[in-house]
Amino acid sequence: MAVGTELLLGQIADTNSAWLGEQLAAAGVGSHFHQAVGDNHARIVLTLRTALARGDGVIVCGGLGPTQDDITREAIAEVMNAPLVRDGAIVARIASFFESRNRTMSENNARQGDVPVGATIIEQTQGTAPGLICPLGNKVIYAVPGVPYEMAEMFERGILPDLRRRMAEAGEEAIIVSRVLRTWGTSESALAEALQERIDALDAASLEGSVTIAFLASGIEGLKVRLTGRARTEAAVLALLDAEEHAVRSVLTEKLGDIVFGVDDESMEQGVATVLLARGLSLGVAESLTGGLIASRLVDVPGASRWFRGGVVAYDSAVKHRVLGVPEGPVVTEAAAGAMAEGACAVLGADVGLGITGVAGPDDQEGVTPGTVFVGLALPSHQPVTRRLRLPGDRVRVRQYAAISALDLLRRALLES
Amino acid sequence: MAVGTELLLGQIADTNSAWLGEQLAAAGVGSHFHQAVGDNHARIVLTLRTALARGDGVIVCGGLGPTQDDITREAIAEVMNAPLVRDGAIVARIASFFESRNRTMSENNARQGDVPVGATIIEQTQGTAPGLICPLGNKVIYAVPGVPYEMAEMFERGILPDLRRRMAEAGEEAIIVSRVLRTWGTSESALAEALQERIDALDAASLEGSVTIAFLASGIEGLKVRLTGRARTEAAVLALLDAEEHAVRSVLTEKLGDIVFGVDDESMEQGVATVLLARGLSLGVAESLTGGLIASRLVDVPGASRWFRGGVVAYDSAVKHRVLGVPEGPVVTEAAAGAMAEGACAVLGADVGLGITGVAGPDDQEGVTPGTVFVGLALPSHQPVTRRLRLPGDRVRVRQYAAISALDLLRRALLES
Repeated sequence: MAVGTELLLGQIADTNSAWLGEQLAAAGVGSHFHQAVGDNHARIVLTLRTALARGDGVIVCGGLGPTQDDITREAIAEVMNAPLVRDGAIVARIASFFESRNRTMSENNARQGDVPVGATIIEQTQGTAPGLICPLGNKVIYAVPGVPYEMAEMFERGILPDLRRRMAEAGEEAIIVSRVLRTWGTSESALAEALQERIDALDAASLEGSVTIAFLASGIEGLKVRLTGRARTEAAVLALLDAEEHAVRSVLTEKLGDIVFGVDDESMEQGVATVLLARGLSLGVAESLTGGLIASRLVDVPGASRWFRGGVVAYDSAVKHRVLGVPEGPVVTEAAAGAMAEGACAVLGADVGLGITGVAGPDDQEGVTPGTVFVGLALPSHQPVTRRLRLPGDRVRVRQYAAISALDLLRRALLES
Repeated sequence: MAVGTELLLGQIADTNSAWLGEQLAAAGVGSHFHQAVGDNHARIVLTLRTALARGDGVIVCGGLGPTQDDITREAIAEVMNAPLVRDGAIVARIASFFESRNRTMSENNARQGDVPVGATIIEQTQGTAPGLICPLGNKVIYAVPGVPYEMAEMFERGILPDLRRRMAEAGEEAIIVSRVLRTWGTSESALAEALQERIDALDAASLEGSVTIAFLASGIEGLKVRLTGRARTEAAVLALLDAEEHAVRSVLTEKLGDIVFGVDDESMEQGVATVLLARGLSLGVAESLTGGLIASRLVDVPGASRWFRGGVVAYDSAVKHRVLGVPEGPVVTEAAAGAMAEGACAVLGADVGLGITGVAGPDDQEGVTPGTVFVGLALPSHQPVTRRLRLPGDRVRVRQYAAISALDLLRRALLES
């Protein structure tokens, strides 16, 4: 259940419900209804009662903030038929949160310390509003902030363990674990064709536990192959997943090449980091159309300072010539991408250089059409290698596809070197 | 109301509800609840009944396709307590749709010609399933396909005119328009306090039309102040919004400073671009902890090549010293940020330089704690200005906050210069 008038007005999209649905499915919890409601006391109460009548529990996202619009606490208290009592310890933590930022807590923020009698809290670690676990007989209301990362963190730390405990008590526990193989450079139909035999074999198998395979498109971050195992114990489900991952990787490598770049949350840049560290090499990048996007992805990898030297965002042609030493002349060419890669090594003192130039659009540049991208790679004691790519989409998507495509080319070139 | 098990499992996000919410708000139709439900007859019936009990009408998206999962028609017939009758004219149109593509219609597709007695149809122009308008006394169920472009086209052609007719009969027609002021550098509670008098005045006012004020947190992109106007005509509602925007901006500037950086979808980088273009200045950036994030945001502004020269991602200290000319010594200091800003001007040939250094975490660097960030600004014929920031969150969030904070400092400094 999502709370916020902005959701009803379509000013923000409700991404929390889809995320929670995915997490609940993975945990073996059936989720049967989603609801969204505005910042209106009577309607929030009605929606909570509807949700509790239709299920065993409800997760409420939003309406825990400090403003007068934030009335989820009051609505839950009414549904629980319990008074709200201000918890001094929570208020003290909120006050110290403000103090650590040299700001003063307003009276409004103290409302975030209100807790319905009978509820327990899920401590905040990111912001100010704690979450709530509110039992009603054998049913339960979980309330968490609507900010996606606060919601997700509280779900994993506070809600999921409580749900698991309730399921165990009800004798409904099966361990369900998913593992995602992340791929780049193929199509959903090619994946499905390559894995059809595995899927048929799994359907036919009659095991103690079971594994299913599904495909998920995840936009610019490639296609995911999700393996979901179900068994009585965690050891059994992990053994199933290990065996299936091995089988799937073998089939994919044989039929489609080295398309798996990571597992679960491993990003493409982590794949790059892993190979660079294994080879003991440092990296520098020179970016034109991606404008710093590749560098900013690389520094998201913890410990990037061990292998990432830095980058030059050569948006203006003069920067390409003067800073990177790209020869005068056209700059949207394979040769320019190669020179940028070499320039990155020289200027930044890196072993490996990645250069990228191209046209994000909407207009042509140097007679080159939008979506055309050139990548250059300079590896130690090799001549620069260059590649031409044709990428779909508008300005923003061309740039995002260009960044991940270039990182994948780098990853594969390093693996082969 | 959205129908489809894939929504509950989080395999696809429900974008239709947000789109419909926006359209309904613009048409002056209050939308009070969203629901999603899986492909289950009893639950679809329950959800329809819940929706009708809570409102005057419901728009149902999805479940009108040709497969056995598509059971919205049957559920509506049950709620209407009316039989489904196959409409030969619809089946003939579906058959000719297939013929025109040299394909044969399957028996399943004929189900799309089933219409509950008492309902009228919204003709298909894009696919095969027609929409339905199903009156229940003074209430109504509209059913449309879940495919976003089919849904949108049918909403505009079939649902909106019917809704307008119903509102005119009930004397409830109004135009509703929202406008969002985007702010950075303050808290939700401070905004609420600053605008409390305006909000009270609006509540007390008894006008032909009306305006309401609401606050929306939008994560790292700051806080939004949403003005929603309602009046009989578009001209009247725009006049109301213009007057209220002026009043709100005056109050905010007086009490909290120049915190409004844009309107509606305008991003912080667009705010920066606007001031740079107005002053005829070019920009170069030197980034350490943000690792290219600031540059990549700047190039997202269409036409950035008119004012953006490029950047240096000086992640390694050696790059700061050698490429940007930062003096040897500590690099996580205000002085280093100032030197980076000057270096960006010199190396990239820019009028204005922005430098940023700091500690994203998780570990200290040079004895400086994570979340500490130094920003340097070099403006034409000024000594570099530097600022120290303390930012909350983990590694990724510190970096994101650092990027938008630095852009805001730049925007304000340019406005004052």
